[in-house]
Amino acid sequence: MQEIKKYVADNKQRFLDELFDLLRFPSVSADPAYKNEVLKTADFVAQKLRDAGADNVEVCPTAGYPIVYGEKIVDSSKPTVLVYGHYDVQPADPLELWHTPPFEPTIRDEKIYARGACDDKGQFYMHVKAFELMIQTNTLPCNIKFMIEGEEEVGSNNLGIFVQQNKDRLKSDVVLISDTAMISMENPSLETGLRGLSYVEVEVTGPNRDLHSGVYGGAVANPATILAKLIASLHDENNHITIPGFYDDVVELSAAEREALNKAPFDIEDYITDLGVEEVWGEKGYTTLERTGTRPTLEVNGIWGGYIGEGAKTVLPSKASAKISMRLVPNQNSDKITKLFQNHFEKIAPKSVKVKVTPHHGGEPVVTPTDSVAFRAAQKAIAESFGKEPIPTRGGGSIPIVALFEKELGIKTVLMGFGLDSDNLHSPNEKYDIANYYKGIETIPLFHKYFAELSN
Amino acid sequence: MQEIKKYVADNKQRFLDELFDLLRFPSVSADPAYKNEVLKTADFVAQKLRDAGADNVEVCPTAGYPIVYGEKIVDSSKPTVLVYGHYDVQPADPLELWHTPPFEPTIRDEKIYARGACDDKGQFYMHVKAFELMIQTNTLPCNIKFMIEGEEEVGSNNLGIFVQQNKDRLKSDVVLISDTAMISMENPSLETGLRGLSYVEVEVTGPNRDLHSGVYGGAVANPATILAKLIASLHDENNHITIPGFYDDVVELSAAEREALNKAPFDIEDYITDLGVEEVWGEKGYTTLERTGTRPTLEVNGIWGGYIGEGAKTVLPSKASAKISMRLVPNQNSDKITKLFQNHFEKIAPKSVKVKVTPHHGGEPVVTPTDSVAFRAAQKAIAESFGKEPIPTRGGGSIPIVALFEKELGIKTVLMGFGLDSDNLHSPNEKYDIANYYKGIETIPLFHKYFAELSN
Repeated sequence: MQEIKKYVADNKQRFLDELFDLLRFPSVSADPAYKNEVLKTADFVAQKLRDAGADNVEVCPTAGYPIVYGEKIVDSSKPTVLVYGHYDVQPADPLELWHTPPFEPTIRDEKIYARGACDDKGQFYMHVKAFELMIQTNTLPCNIKFMIEGEEEVGSNNLGIFVQQNKDRLKSDVVLISDTAMISMENPSLETGLRGLSYVEVEVTGPNRDLHSGVYGGAVANPATILAKLIASLHDENNHITIPGFYDDVVELSAAEREALNKAPFDIEDYITDLGVEEVWGEKGYTTLERTGTRPTLEVNGIWGGYIGEGAKTVLPSKASAKISMRLVPNQNSDKITKLFQNHFEKIAPKSVKVKVTPHHGGEPVVTPTDSVAFRAAQKAIAESFGKEPIPTRGGGSIPIVALFEKELGIKTVLMGFGLDSDNLHSPNEKYDIANYYKGIETIPLFHKYFAELSN
Repeated sequence: MQEIKKYVADNKQRFLDELFDLLRFPSVSADPAYKNEVLKTADFVAQKLRDAGADNVEVCPTAGYPIVYGEKIVDSSKPTVLVYGHYDVQPADPLELWHTPPFEPTIRDEKIYARGACDDKGQFYMHVKAFELMIQTNTLPCNIKFMIEGEEEVGSNNLGIFVQQNKDRLKSDVVLISDTAMISMENPSLETGLRGLSYVEVEVTGPNRDLHSGVYGGAVANPATILAKLIASLHDENNHITIPGFYDDVVELSAAEREALNKAPFDIEDYITDLGVEEVWGEKGYTTLERTGTRPTLEVNGIWGGYIGEGAKTVLPSKASAKISMRLVPNQNSDKITKLFQNHFEKIAPKSVKVKVTPHHGGEPVVTPTDSVAFRAAQKAIAESFGKEPIPTRGGGSIPIVALFEKELGIKTVLMGFGLDSDNLHSPNEKYDIANYYKGIETIPLFHKYFAELSN
């Protein structure tokens, strides 16, 4: 541990500078306008893997953005860790809400502000630097493979094909991912499950053109009003989702599981204050931790239609649209839920409008084992690094790769995230605490050490 | 009539060229980006009034956009007609739906396509050209005053002050406005009422920042979902508006009035086909003509919130907004309805969000007299010009100036519009039939003639 701390201390500024270089790439995978920047980011990541000491580094083309691969095989009889991360980021808008430009990383109060600071550039780059540390100090105790993709924020559409076509190359004993959050530096935690995702876009079309709301208002169905009615009907008065069959495959937690989950340190008053709301909201009969960790949800991610500029325009719009995503819990299936949504939404639409539902992407929910060698290695690494045993938690987010890996390669995942819920992922002013970045770089070599030891 | 037709025939191309020059100004009053263009339009209109023979032409400053005034007093013992119109236009977006650029007037199938072609540049400019005709042929039978404003599309906020401060200058016997539609060239009509307007913007705020919908989804009220629920609740299952007190001041039409109204030529199948919808929609118990002409309505003119760009972003938005306008019928009051809406909307919002209602502008509903000298003059002018008696109809739109004139100056209005409902007012591909433009220029001098004759 002393050697690790010394190496990190000796290279502190360079570790930060390199992350800043990575954060300056606006690698927004959702927006085709950034295509060249996303591609440049992949090349940058590949070069940094080479610099750190990886062999066989390759920017592997896909039908979308490339996957960066690299490896270090020290001894084929030793266990192998596959590190997954992603170099693409969420769109930065609304830009006007950023205090400093999203792609010009800035330090304030010991935090790095930039799009991707935590999700996931800051987190996957810890692994690159921890790898460099193990190479330089000659302490790499197992084989390591890196797979850093560029389409996580748009559904990892091409990753499945890549994994299928590279089963030998990717053969490993565990997948290690840092793309989740812990409760706090004082209460380190390990996520043991992730929600799945079904993301759709809906379009409601009324008249074949925008109409004058005075001449036609009151006589023609307004798609914005109808869309509002359709969306409103998707939750009942208890905030249960009303899509028939939606909950069919949900496995209810046992009383003991619920009790354990609700024991995690969590202050509802802090939560409310942090978000600036008067009260929380959600499905009746469940706590906030249960709502985000164990229950499926349906959220409107975007809605638009008609005149949204300055001032007043008296128009009855021809179309109104929304982006809607559902988070799924273990045993639910993304394709099935997407179909249930589609059928339901088309069925409840009145005849006076046309409705189109376009699936965007999905991902399956997962539960990671808590009795594996890899999970115990993560527990020991965190306990040693933080001086406190990590608390197991259930995460609300989705990392589709986890289910994919299990299905295609038969490998389980350990989610060893160093972010915080307050890191503003997907929001303006995304940040990552500098302390968490360094702590991650220090903890990762311990994981490898214990994983190698316990695997014997 | 022969002399009129000859003058129009001799000046056909010039009349069109001048209108095209006027249409090329992007005089969008709602968008501050067009400020200079709106101001230039006012100067252009003033120059054209001078060229046509008007005296005392002035671009009168207001707190917003100027009002263009001009007059010709032939004999103070003769009656005076005040022509009102507006040189500002609606925003042109969505631009991508225009077949030709909105501010580059284009003729297709004998129709002029441009923003403002009908509303109201094409229509008010007929009066400028009819005035020129009467000056040039020495047939102006009464005094004429022009008041052409630049803020009609944003609520005529500064017109009231101008009218109050210019009561003497504006003193007239009737207000003549061409800013409405007729049924068709085969079925000329005269509107005898207009709906009032209450236009508001609502903003629903949930958490103090955009959130990751995986981390927080299901545990925090989503403003887009709440906005949808609030909007959905504004109409009940019969499409009645649910705001308490909303209908209190509405005077129901008598059975005889309803019968007369529904006798107007109207083919519901043509209407449905033209709009490309499967069926009409509206308040139960009323026909389409009643819904648009005699009933108050509530329409969403725009809605937005969250991520509305390409692809998928899993965000739980901090805010969602909508522009909502209500059309009012005689005896309803715009301020009162705005307050009812505001109180109701704030009251039904759940505690988990904050709601802000901002009134944009309003206007009072009006019924114009059908037994006045001016109305009979309009009937005679149309009967002579079109060879058919005009049918009285009720318009669904709003021209706030009409109620204002009655209140401030005690003058009634005649609504002699030459547009068609299919002119795509406020929509992409706004148009005005060339035939209607010329027909208007021919009919207007007849109105002045009969108004002078009948006033004796």
